[in-house]
Amino acid sequence: MDSLYRFSSIASKMQPSPIRELFKLIRQPGMISFAGGLPDPGGFPVEPFATCADVLERDGREVLQYGASEGYGPLREALIDIMRDRIDREILPEELIVTSGSQQAVDLVARVLLDPGDIVVVEAPTYPGTLHSLRNVGARFAAIPCDADGMQVELLPELVAGCESATGKRPKLIYSVPDFSNPSGACLSLERRRRLIEIASELQIPVFEDDPYGRLRFRGEAIPTLKHLADDQDLVIYASSFSKVLAPGVRVAWTVAAPRLIQSMVMMRQGEDLCTSTVTQALVAEYCRRGFLENHLRHIIATYAAKCRLMEEALSRHLSLDQAEWHAPDGGFFFWMRFLAADGSAVFDHAVKDKVAFVPGKAFFPAEDEQVGAVQDGNRFGRLCFTFADAGQIEQGCARLAQALNSAAVTNDRE
Amino acid sequence: MDSLYRFSSIASKMQPSPIRELFKLIRQPGMISFAGGLPDPGGFPVEPFATCADVLERDGREVLQYGASEGYGPLREALIDIMRDRIDREILPEELIVTSGSQQAVDLVARVLLDPGDIVVVEAPTYPGTLHSLRNVGARFAAIPCDADGMQVELLPELVAGCESATGKRPKLIYSVPDFSNPSGACLSLERRRRLIEIASELQIPVFEDDPYGRLRFRGEAIPTLKHLADDQDLVIYASSFSKVLAPGVRVAWTVAAPRLIQSMVMMRQGEDLCTSTVTQALVAEYCRRGFLENHLRHIIATYAAKCRLMEEALSRHLSLDQAEWHAPDGGFFFWMRFLAADGSAVFDHAVKDKVAFVPGKAFFPAEDEQVGAVQDGNRFGRLCFTFADAGQIEQGCARLAQALNSAAVTNDRE
Repeated sequence: MDSLYRFSSIASKMQPSPIRELFKLIRQPGMISFAGGLPDPGGFPVEPFATCADVLERDGREVLQYGASEGYGPLREALIDIMRDRIDREILPEELIVTSGSQQAVDLVARVLLDPGDIVVVEAPTYPGTLHSLRNVGARFAAIPCDADGMQVELLPELVAGCESATGKRPKLIYSVPDFSNPSGACLSLERRRRLIEIASELQIPVFEDDPYGRLRFRGEAIPTLKHLADDQDLVIYASSFSKVLAPGVRVAWTVAAPRLIQSMVMMRQGEDLCTSTVTQALVAEYCRRGFLENHLRHIIATYAAKCRLMEEALSRHLSLDQAEWHAPDGGFFFWMRFLAADGSAVFDHAVKDKVAFVPGKAFFPAEDEQVGAVQDGNRFGRLCFTFADAGQIEQGCARLAQALNSAAVTNDRE
Repeated sequence: MDSLYRFSSIASKMQPSPIRELFKLIRQPGMISFAGGLPDPGGFPVEPFATCADVLERDGREVLQYGASEGYGPLREALIDIMRDRIDREILPEELIVTSGSQQAVDLVARVLLDPGDIVVVEAPTYPGTLHSLRNVGARFAAIPCDADGMQVELLPELVAGCESATGKRPKLIYSVPDFSNPSGACLSLERRRRLIEIASELQIPVFEDDPYGRLRFRGEAIPTLKHLADDQDLVIYASSFSKVLAPGVRVAWTVAAPRLIQSMVMMRQGEDLCTSTVTQALVAEYCRRGFLENHLRHIIATYAAKCRLMEEALSRHLSLDQAEWHAPDGGFFFWMRFLAADGSAVFDHAVKDKVAFVPGKAFFPAEDEQVGAVQDGNRFGRLCFTFADAGQIEQGCARLAQALNSAAVTNDRE
C-alpha cells in the first residue's frame, strides 16, 4: 500500500496501453513493423509545413498569447470550409471546437456524458485509444460485432435492450469509425448508415462519428458521413483530425456537435488544458490557407494506394488460404486479418521471432469483464498497418508473416 | 430535461469559468484591463521564436510524427537543465512529464489521485484554474488562509484534523503556489516552507507546488522551492510552465514527481490527448538550446519590474489609505488588494463603468458549499495584473480605480 499517494479508484485499475507495451517488445534491429498506426514519415510535407512558420512572425503577438478554448479564429475558418465538403452544409461557430487530437474529443465527450458504470456501444473491433479514454471515466462497453460492411447495425436494438434489462441502464453513446475503421479497414455501408441513424434516433442515443481516415479513400465511391445523413443535427457528434492527413505531431483535431454539447466540452476543457496550442493551430491554419493540404492529400492518397496494393499482392503471394483471411481496404491505414490456424497472440510471438510485427486483435476489444451482454473477443485477429513500412519492407514482412503463421500453426497442432 | 444527452453528474453541475464570463463584460472600447493574467504581448520574443522554426525543417520527420506521452527528447534535456537550477539536483528521466500547460498537470494529478468527494487543501485565495480542474473530478476543498507570507502553514494540522472529523477523510493533496502566488503575489516564507514540508510529511499528504512565476523575481532574494527543500523526493509534485517565461500560446509545461505518480499521469494521458504537440515542444526546445530563454527572462524581468513599480506608485498616488490596502509583490504578475469600504463585486461594477477592470476576489475562493471546515471568502478582495497594460494605461487605470472606489464607498454608505 502506498500511504503517500492514495490513487483514485479509476487510476488504481489503470493499465499501460497494450499497444505501447507491445512497442517495447518490437523495438529491435531488423524488425519490420506493421504494428503502429503511423503515417509514412517519408511522406510528411516537411518543407511546405516549415514555410508556414512565417505566420509565427507575422501574427506572433496573437499566436503566442492564450487562445480561446474553442480554437483559433483562422483555423476555425479553415475547418468550416473542410466541413462543408464532409457534410454539405455550413456549420455554425457554436457547433465547433478544436481539440488536441481527436483523442481529446473522445476524452471530453466521455467526461461530459459518462459517470462510472455507464455504458458505451463500441464496434468489435474498435480503436483502443477510445477504449482507454472511456475507461478513464469508468465506462463499461456493449460490443457490437462488425463485418466487411462495418458495424452490424441490425443487432443494435437487441444489444441496447439487453443492456437495459441486464443493468437498468441505456447506453449513453454509440462510438463508430464508419470510414476505414481502425482496425478493420471496413466502411459502414450506406444502407447501414441510414439504419444506424434511424435506430439511434429512435433510442435517443447520440452517435460519436470518428472520422480520421475518411478523406484517405483511394478507390471506390465516397459514402456520406453520418453527420451528413442525419436530419437531427444533434444526434451525431462528428470528430476529425489533421493527424492522418497532415501530421500527428501537430495534435490538431476538431469536433462538430450540438452547441450545448460543445459548450460542456469547452467548460470541461478549461479545467483540462485551457486550449490547443495557438502556435500549432496557426501553423495548420496557414498550411490550409496556402492550399497545401489539398496537394498533400492527393500525394498521400497515391502513396497509400500503392502501398496498400503492394501489401495486398504480397499477402496473396505469400500466405495460403488455410492460414488467414483478409480483405483489402479502399482507404485508410489497415488490413484486418483473421488467422485460421492459431490465435493472434501465438502468431505474434512467432512473428516477433521472425522480425515482423503487427498488433494482435485482442487490443481492439474491451476486456471480458468490461463488457455488458454477449462477449466479443479478438483472439483470432491481427491488425496490419500498410502506411508506415516501405515497399521492400512490405514485401519481406509479408513473407516473414507467412513463415510465422506456419510455425504458429505447427505449434498449435502440437498442443 | 435533455433526453438525447444525459450529462455526467459532474458536467451537470459545471459552470462557465467566472473569469471568462467577466471577460465578456469588459470587452468594451476604452476599457483598461488589469483583469486577465496575461503576459505583455508587446514583450513576446516574436522574432527569436520564429527563427527557431528551422527545427521544423531540420527534424521534420520526427517532429511531425506521434511523440511520447512523457515528452520530446530534446525538450526533456532542456528541462533537466532548467530543473537543476530550481532544485539543485539532477532529476531522473522517470520523474519528468511534459504537459500541455500546467493546467494539464493539475488535471492529470487530480484524475489519478481523486475520487468525487475527496478533499484538497487550497490556499485562500488560490488560482481559479486549479479549482476548475479539481471540480472536474468532483473534489471538495479545505481552504487555508494566507497572509503576506503565503499560506498560514501553522493552521494546517488543525484544518486536516477538522476535515477528518467532519468527513472521515484526510485531504489527499495540498495545492500551493509558493512563489508570487496567483492571485496574492505573496511568497511563502522560508520558515513556512520548511514547516509545510514537515507537516505534509508527518500527515503523508503530497504537496503540489505550482511554480509558473518563480523565475520572474525582480527584487528580494530567491527562496528555495519546496521540491528543493524536501528530503523525501516523493512528497512534492513540482510543476512549472513556459507560459509566463516564454509564451502561453505554446502550451508547454512540465511536472517533476515520483516515478510512480508520473507513470500514472502518463497512462491517464494516453486516454486524454496522447502527448503534447511535438511541433511546439521542438520549437521550445530549440528556443532553449539557442540560449534565447535566459536572454528573454532578463528582458521581461526588467519590464515587469518597471511596470510593477509604476502600478505601485500610481496606486499610492491615487488611492487613499481608507480605500484599500495592498502590498507590492517582488515578482510575478499580480497585486492583491483589500477594499476597505466596499465589496470587490461592488467596486468591480463601478470600475467597469469607469472603464477599468480587475478580477473580484470571489473567483479565487471555492464556493461556500464546496468548502469543508471554516469557510473562507474573498468578497473584500480584488486582483490587479500589472504585466499586460502599458505604462499610460497603468497610470490612468489606477486613477479610474480610485474614482470607482469612491463611488462604491458612497453607494455602500447609502445602503
